[in-house]
Amino acid sequence: MEPIPDGGLHCVAGIRLGAARCGIKTQSQQPDVALVVSKGPASAAGVFTRNAFAAAPVLWCRALLPTDNARAVVLNAGNANACTGPRGEQDVRDCAGLVAELLACEREQVLAASTGIIGHPLPMEKLTGGIREAAGGLATTPDAARRTELAILTTDTRPKACAVRSMMGGAAFHVAGMAKGAGMIAPHMATMLCVVATDAAVPAELLAGQVAEAADLTFNRVTVDGDTSTNDSVIVLATGACGAEVGGDEAGLPAFRAALQMVLADLARRVVRDGEGATKLLTVHARGAADNVAAEKAARAVAESQLVKCAVYGGDPNWGRIVCAVGYSGVPVRPGDVSVDIGPVRVFCDGQPTGRDAAAQMRGPDVKVTIGLGTGPGEATVQTCDLTEEYVRINAEYHT
Amino acid sequence: MEPIPDGGLHCVAGIRLGAARCGIKTQSQQPDVALVVSKGPASAAGVFTRNAFAAAPVLWCRALLPTDNARAVVLNAGNANACTGPRGEQDVRDCAGLVAELLACEREQVLAASTGIIGHPLPMEKLTGGIREAAGGLATTPDAARRTELAILTTDTRPKACAVRSMMGGAAFHVAGMAKGAGMIAPHMATMLCVVATDAAVPAELLAGQVAEAADLTFNRVTVDGDTSTNDSVIVLATGACGAEVGGDEAGLPAFRAALQMVLADLARRVVRDGEGATKLLTVHARGAADNVAAEKAARAVAESQLVKCAVYGGDPNWGRIVCAVGYSGVPVRPGDVSVDIGPVRVFCDGQPTGRDAAAQMRGPDVKVTIGLGTGPGEATVQTCDLTEEYVRINAEYHT
Repeated sequence: MEPIPDGGLHCVAGIRLGAARCGIKTQSQQPDVALVVSKGPASAAGVFTRNAFAAAPVLWCRALLPTDNARAVVLNAGNANACTGPRGEQDVRDCAGLVAELLACEREQVLAASTGIIGHPLPMEKLTGGIREAAGGLATTPDAARRTELAILTTDTRPKACAVRSMMGGAAFHVAGMAKGAGMIAPHMATMLCVVATDAAVPAELLAGQVAEAADLTFNRVTVDGDTSTNDSVIVLATGACGAEVGGDEAGLPAFRAALQMVLADLARRVVRDGEGATKLLTVHARGAADNVAAEKAARAVAESQLVKCAVYGGDPNWGRIVCAVGYSGVPVRPGDVSVDIGPVRVFCDGQPTGRDAAAQMRGPDVKVTIGLGTGPGEATVQTCDLTEEYVRINAEYHT
Repeated sequence: MEPIPDGGLHCVAGIRLGAARCGIKTQSQQPDVALVVSKGPASAAGVFTRNAFAAAPVLWCRALLPTDNARAVVLNAGNANACTGPRGEQDVRDCAGLVAELLACEREQVLAASTGIIGHPLPMEKLTGGIREAAGGLATTPDAARRTELAILTTDTRPKACAVRSMMGGAAFHVAGMAKGAGMIAPHMATMLCVVATDAAVPAELLAGQVAEAADLTFNRVTVDGDTSTNDSVIVLATGACGAEVGGDEAGLPAFRAALQMVLADLARRVVRDGEGATKLLTVHARGAADNVAAEKAARAVAESQLVKCAVYGGDPNWGRIVCAVGYSGVPVRPGDVSVDIGPVRVFCDGQPTGRDAAAQMRGPDVKVTIGLGTGPGEATVQTCDLTEEYVRINAEYHT
């Protein structure tokens, strides 16, 4: 498996991309409507927000997935189509219907995702114009991919995409994706979207399991501010256009699984690094827990601690806040068995500080904390960004 | 029941107070050792942090309480005696032993509480000097109470105390308390202490139940940053010195319960208002939940949302962030049944924004949010402060 430099969805055989600017996104002149289109029927699956106020496009996709017969994903930024009632649901149907008409397929072959302001109906006149324009310019070029990546951003500071190439049996295949983040942004912004495609053939039910597992190990292990938005979506299309096949006997599955997890992990890291106001990436690894679930719980408590995140921002090797977060995580621990390392420096063990100085480990853009729980074989990693004055400023200054 | 203006622990018959400065607290010239002493044996009970890294004084108190035979609480600020291993446990025993010697009682009649830096052994030479000085100046004056209140502060900006007077049967009684907060403060600070006393007689087991209930409804319903420290302690002494008695048949219990809850609620509010960097108090009331537990869960999700807290700071009536937090709280809701009021202004119902402007409700120092869940009779209130650049600054700038 190898990463493709400057890779994106254009690296996947059978995928065409289009984007347009129709004026929904008012804060920039970037494109704001995107289409990801498979030449033929693709299998598709997704994972979506667990928020009870799931947006209309999330409800639409949930009803259709998994499927062996998807053709496209239509996306827009600037308006989340969340908390928009029955009109919002009709608008998704109408968008999908328009795309289907333009691609000569069925409405139920078209998936949808939106991000942006909550509680406002989609401006359908603008949007239909944008969809027509995007569909008219479908291409397989790097430039088309870049415009598509830009079209789904809101307050992100940069586009996020990646691609890998791998082999199953003797056949090469690709997995690539794009994403936007990060933070439930001012005001009423609904956040995380991710579209991934592969040119391997993967049956829909199998794909659904793989997406769920990969998302759980990647996007569900990153946190910016703990807020799960109304629109979070990860959608994966498998075009089968390259000849590689994850068969019924699951040949090729290990290679596909590894490639999918690498792409999602890379995109998740990019989302966290571009979190609102973020200056550093914090990776919290918990090991020695009773099981992986307990490990994740401990790691998440540390990664979500406002005080730990402030300490990372300030470059302070504050083991006390880390130990404290482990202590209230709800994971059973014996204090004397717990250790804390910052980078390679052990700062706490045997129930007491070691007195070793880890200040140098806090200076770079990547901070690593390892927590030893001394209980069992469980381990997990959760990533987050630091909490900065800029985060507060961004999220306090906006006025509705 | 009536509040006593400028009331404090000195309002409780049978309580004597002493404080001294011994130099543990380096950031100010305030007293840093305090004694709260009952003239005779008092019943006592407490609730303590659930953090697995509970500090040595917490372990000491847990082993002794509830009891009908307490005489004193010795407190210090500037050093939490947490993560200090066996030496920390010996230091607590030695402090209690010294107090017992000075008061001519048993070591196991002396409770203890500490707050301050984590991971450093208590400076016992300084501390024993301070304890002797505090014991030598025990008094029942408002001035002694104020010095005691100051002695337990760390980065708090003001002392926190209150007292109420009430009647049970024909007898007057008092409940009073002092507290310190707020936020798990830089670096390795371990936070919340509260000592309450009443001159009513209350059997220890009954007192224990009352303290647990009152703490659950007050201190457990406030949050500054969600971090539960290693030292959080609420200790209640009942001297029985005023003649009022909460009897075996529980006569007088309703009056005592109401007074205790009022004192703890008042102190909890003071702790939140004095949260690090706080400029506003946010009260989140959830009603219409399936039960009170579900209501608390929904209210807590809103009160702990970084984005909601930033919006309160910014004065932004951001219903989208509130709805989103309810949506990910894990409480089952039907989106169309949920309503959100900011002050008296309904901003969201029927799955959509109402379009009404609540900006004026966000301007003062008190912001009230009411969430209607439309499911059942459960309700709960959680209070918090706003999240400000100053909070980040305080917690990032300190370097260990």
